[in-house]
Amino acid sequence: VIIVIRKEASAEEIGTVETTLKELGYGVHPITGVERTVIAAVGAPGHDKEDAAEQLRALPHVEDVIFILKPYKFVAKEYHPEKSTVKVGNVTIGGDQVVIMAGPCTVESREQLLTTARAVKAAGATILRGGAYKPSTSPYSFQGMGLDGLKLLAEAREETGLPIITEVMHVRHIEQVAAYADILQIGTRNMQNYEILEEVGKINKPVMLKRGMTAKIEEWLQAAEYIFIGGNKEVILCERGVRTFEQYTRNTLDLSAVLAVRELSHLPIVVDPSQGTGRASMIAGMSKAAVAVGADALIIEVHPHPERALKDGAQSITIPAFDRLMTELPAVAQAVGRSL
Amino acid sequence: VIIVIRKEASAEEIGTVETTLKELGYGVHPITGVERTVIAAVGAPGHDKEDAAEQLRALPHVEDVIFILKPYKFVAKEYHPEKSTVKVGNVTIGGDQVVIMAGPCTVESREQLLTTARAVKAAGATILRGGAYKPSTSPYSFQGMGLDGLKLLAEAREETGLPIITEVMHVRHIEQVAAYADILQIGTRNMQNYEILEEVGKINKPVMLKRGMTAKIEEWLQAAEYIFIGGNKEVILCERGVRTFEQYTRNTLDLSAVLAVRELSHLPIVVDPSQGTGRASMIAGMSKAAVAVGADALIIEVHPHPERALKDGAQSITIPAFDRLMTELPAVAQAVGRSL
Amino acid sequence: VIIVIRKEASAEEIGTVETTLKELGYGVHPITGVERTVIAAVGAPGHDKEDAAEQLRALPHVEDVIFILKPYKFVAKEYHPEKSTVKVGNVTIGGDQVVIMAGPCTVESREQLLTTARAVKAAGATILRGGAYKPSTSPYSFQGMGLDGLKLLAEAREETGLPIITEVMHVRHIEQVAAYADILQIGTRNMQNYEILEEVGKINKPVMLKRGMTAKIEEWLQAAEYIFIGGNKEVILCERGVRTFEQYTRNTLDLSAVLAVRELSHLPIVVDPSQGTGRASMIAGMSKAAVAVGADALIIEVHPHPERALKDGAQSITIPAFDRLMTELPAVAQAVGRSL
Amino acid sequence: VIIVIRKEASAEEIGTVETTLKELGYGVHPITGVERTVIAAVGAPGHDKEDAAEQLRALPHVEDVIFILKPYKFVAKEYHPEKSTVKVGNVTIGGDQVVIMAGPCTVESREQLLTTARAVKAAGATILRGGAYKPSTSPYSFQGMGLDGLKLLAEAREETGLPIITEVMHVRHIEQVAAYADILQIGTRNMQNYEILEEVGKINKPVMLKRGMTAKIEEWLQAAEYIFIGGNKEVILCERGVRTFEQYTRNTLDLSAVLAVRELSHLPIVVDPSQGTGRASMIAGMSKAAVAVGADALIIEVHPHPERALKDGAQSITIPAFDRLMTELPAVAQAVGRSL
Repeated sequence: VIIVIRKEASAEEIGTVETTLKELGYGVHPITGVERTVIAAVGAPGHDKEDAAEQLRALPHVEDVIFILKPYKFVAKEYHPEKSTVKVGNVTIGGDQVVIMAGPCTVESREQLLTTARAVKAAGATILRGGAYKPSTSPYSFQGMGLDGLKLLAEAREETGLPIITEVMHVRHIEQVAAYADILQIGTRNMQNYEILEEVGKINKPVMLKRGMTAKIEEWLQAAEYIFIGGNKEVILCERGVRTFEQYTRNTLDLSAVLAVRELSHLPIVVDPSQGTGRASMIAGMSKAAVAVGADALIIEVHPHPERALKDGAQSITIPAFDRLMTELPAVAQAVGRSL
Repeated sequence: VIIVIRKEASAEEIGTVETTLKELGYGVHPITGVERTVIAAVGAPGHDKEDAAEQLRALPHVEDVIFILKPYKFVAKEYHPEKSTVKVGNVTIGGDQVVIMAGPCTVESREQLLTTARAVKAAGATILRGGAYKPSTSPYSFQGMGLDGLKLLAEAREETGLPIITEVMHVRHIEQVAAYADILQIGTRNMQNYEILEEVGKINKPVMLKRGMTAKIEEWLQAAEYIFIGGNKEVILCERGVRTFEQYTRNTLDLSAVLAVRELSHLPIVVDPSQGTGRASMIAGMSKAAVAVGADALIIEVHPHPERALKDGAQSITIPAFDRLMTELPAVAQAVGRSL
Repeated sequence: VIIVIRKEASAEEIGTVETTLKELGYGVHPITGVERTVIAAVGAPGHDKEDAAEQLRALPHVEDVIFILKPYKFVAKEYHPEKSTVKVGNVTIGGDQVVIMAGPCTVESREQLLTTARAVKAAGATILRGGAYKPSTSPYSFQGMGLDGLKLLAEAREETGLPIITEVMHVRHIEQVAAYADILQIGTRNMQNYEILEEVGKINKPVMLKRGMTAKIEEWLQAAEYIFIGGNKEVILCERGVRTFEQYTRNTLDLSAVLAVRELSHLPIVVDPSQGTGRASMIAGMSKAAVAVGADALIIEVHPHPERALKDGAQSITIPAFDRLMTELPAVAQAVGRSL
Repeated sequence: VIIVIRKEASAEEIGTVETTLKELGYGVHPITGVERTVIAAVGAPGHDKEDAAEQLRALPHVEDVIFILKPYKFVAKEYHPEKSTVKVGNVTIGGDQVVIMAGPCTVESREQLLTTARAVKAAGATILRGGAYKPSTSPYSFQGMGLDGLKLLAEAREETGLPIITEVMHVRHIEQVAAYADILQIGTRNMQNYEILEEVGKINKPVMLKRGMTAKIEEWLQAAEYIFIGGNKEVILCERGVRTFEQYTRNTLDLSAVLAVRELSHLPIVVDPSQGTGRASMIAGMSKAAVAVGADALIIEVHPHPERALKDGAQSITIPAFDRLMTELPAVAQAVGRSL
């Protein structure tokens, strides 16, 4: 850590800070500049370095404490310079091929799910999405079919051969959801639900961790680190838009996050243009942009009748619109050296 | 709901939208303006009205759908025009007296807790705060003493007579925490952890619900509605700062939220100047402002030695600083017609 | 406008609101719903409709006032359903071909500019960028070469044949800058500098209007409307990233803004991946994404020696990096049905 | 500056960075930590230090560059440890007395202005506010009465003796506005209009600089530095709310900015609860909070008939509401050791 000393501190007062740092176990390197003295403190006390840096802010004469190290380890590129891949059935996420996950926001009925599953498979999707447990801002909103939804997803997998991804919302459902799903999705509201992060760290199924609505990249990687520490190394990240002042779109889809994750981490990254924009009209355009920027996969909401969807109709595209998109995406993938 | 029709829609196309609305069970009132036709759709289909409004966005020729009603009921002022109060022992939150909750961010040791508890009681605090389970962005950060921390809190209550407030982080700890705490705190990261909201809705202890880091007032009230629906009506809200672009403070403490809650709801509201600013130097000033704007209580982090605090030292004030603040706050409370 | 009446208002009180609305010249259509009465007020008083809507908020018993119409006219797609194009020399912005504007952030010297100009022309750029007047958050920062910079730009145009785009910062420089530039750029800090907007509305040169750091799409289009009203219809928009909580990137580049502008307006739109990310390492990736989403042009900072750039070195790419990017972009353009 | 070297850099590569730093004129202090090498670079090259730090980011093997010094000088508390005051007639802003500036958002007519001026004076306001030139997001919105408005303000000052504060929007109006106004207001959209900042730096009248809608405290102080450098030292800051995701209020009034300015600068600071919330119902509450936190002055919009105001009716209070507020504020001021 770098400790910036207030300008008005005397040499004696600076000495006190140095003594305290040494008592806390740091190696101390003071540097006297023209306008400020800074102290580089090297090495670390027994407990967490960030906690320790936070303590130092409370010292007298300290103007600022700058933490240099990255606050995650196993998910960092430094730890694992090669890109990681996650395999689900015969689908590889993080390889050369861009993976398309598609399906309804929420499982509503056998017919709705199977119609959609067949259609997205026919169009070239290789993973089926569908919510059985749905988080809702409003307690009066439809909360999903639960176990019945999971069973329908399993039936759709049976018929189409598509692996399924579905959200786990409650820690007490993890076992149940894991029994049906091929990939467990952690939603944006649960990105810092440490109880769930710790539990999915112990299971033997891939986990897709959505970025929190206002999570910094760093916090998102720290959340992924929680899962890694538990022992589960099959973690996939998913950018789904962040909250800003803009109201025209539901969220602001941050495609530079794909590049940031690539620079900082080895984890594969998915983009969700449905949640990311909240507008069906923008899904095709943002899907192409996501592939062009280097996303490893897309997750797209498709519904046979968006105007009758029980949830999120406005951000679901129709089956014909999905078909059209799937004919357009391969050229973009090839243009950036990938296949689809 | 109000449905705004695209300008280019023909009379026939508008007719189709009207027909669909009638099929969905709405009463339909078209209004033809100079530049737009809007349709007021009255009454509602069987399921949730917001979900239904969302469906309508997916209809052709619809430019926008505006939802008029408030998406919560029991926590609304309309439902209960009088301000609610929550009683804990002989302390009333939401009454004329401004309540001061104080104590360490985290329980670290018997000595640290008891020293602080005695000091804050002597200075006039009437509720003791202290974290036994601590959410941490970093998995390597100190996570609290757990059950041992709860036991120390109980001991501090025994000795000082102060009721205790402490955070419940994990749904599986609710029973345990509820056995010790007088008020359960739901932290900012768990404001939309619906599993916890539903469970604390079933217990018989007051719950303090912190505002999510980027939750709109409306979403926060919806989260409170989840608890009410479960049957627990002893809900207290807590403004703790929202995330913005500003970096000098850890969060931006939104004191207008106190007024917004007053206008929209009957629930009591607490302000947390420690989390809200992240800077010990700002706690006294923001505490006074919070009392002036009408907060029902403050929750303040106090530590005997902030520079050795295991967590959040930079936002804890010392015991002498707390003593001084407690001599200054009563005049502010009286200036706005309250006591302390 | 739609006026939402407070639930507690009596029939008589609602009548008073209606009477006031009629006095203000509105046609009045009350709609009584189950939980709320709303009044649709049609037609408008003499002055601006948004100002009028704002007045109504101050009426007693009014809970909310919802403004339905778009607050701009000439820049709206409804006014001009075809996409507009702007021609500069033999370059067309807004046509099938994606235009590449490139050059140094700031003109620093004859050699620096000419070296860069030749290189970007050789690589395929068709417009030269370069700042002569540079806005700086810090008064101590380099502010550009001014008139000498403009002369060097003219010399570079002479030699390479590339039209030039450069920023006008001060209203008193408009005439001077317009005498040299082919396109005048309005920077993000000046998006709501109405004095400049009005003045560039009167000149006969294309204007590229950058989005304000935290401007909503709607506000950006209103700023463009100012220029149109002045009589200048050659307006180009430029998305350059918005300010969010994220710190890894300098701004968050909002590529969905390209689609939003397409849905709402007929104006061509440029994307600036240099300002938009602040990181040279992200420019190639975000450039590809911008082309894939449908941007009409890119504006890219290129410098022979970024580590010696007087401004913004961290977001400039080297000449070899630009050369490489220019070999990769055409395939992306073709994949979305455009050329480059 | 502190330069963080990438982990993978070899000793030789680190040597290259050091050599470059020395060539650029820095004193170089490398510190080898367990996981990273950082280099403290002391002293500075000829040009601006922040520009120089930015250059270093473009060096190979550099992971991050951390700028330690504050990017402003004359407005810093270090430069002038005592609080500054600004005197206007016999009113002192920044002294013990909290100053109340009040009046209409916009001058609309002789009667409207004089009625309001007399009323706010009678209630205890000591400065009259009123806009003659009004910035408007919409080009169709009322833009103020201009010179006629200034003349009416002068007439109101003549009659009431209240000094006047009014906005200067256009650089070409500075002379005119300065001829009438006692304090020139720079609006939020012009906080980074450097042409205006430079010009008002040359005049001999106090300037109130509103915070930009999304300006960090640091950027705001840099804007004030521009004015100081011009020679005008009578600068007052004004917090008027920042833009966030919250929609219930027009802006989020950041009262902690008052404390931040106090910690970093010697300039007096005003709070604007009208713009800061956009809701008349919140003005009294936020005014009390602003006084409690230590604001030197308030600026409040008052209108005889808010429902007929040509601008911003929803955030203006009536004369009786202002009267009531003025009876309530003195107690709050006294509670924090000030008068009103």
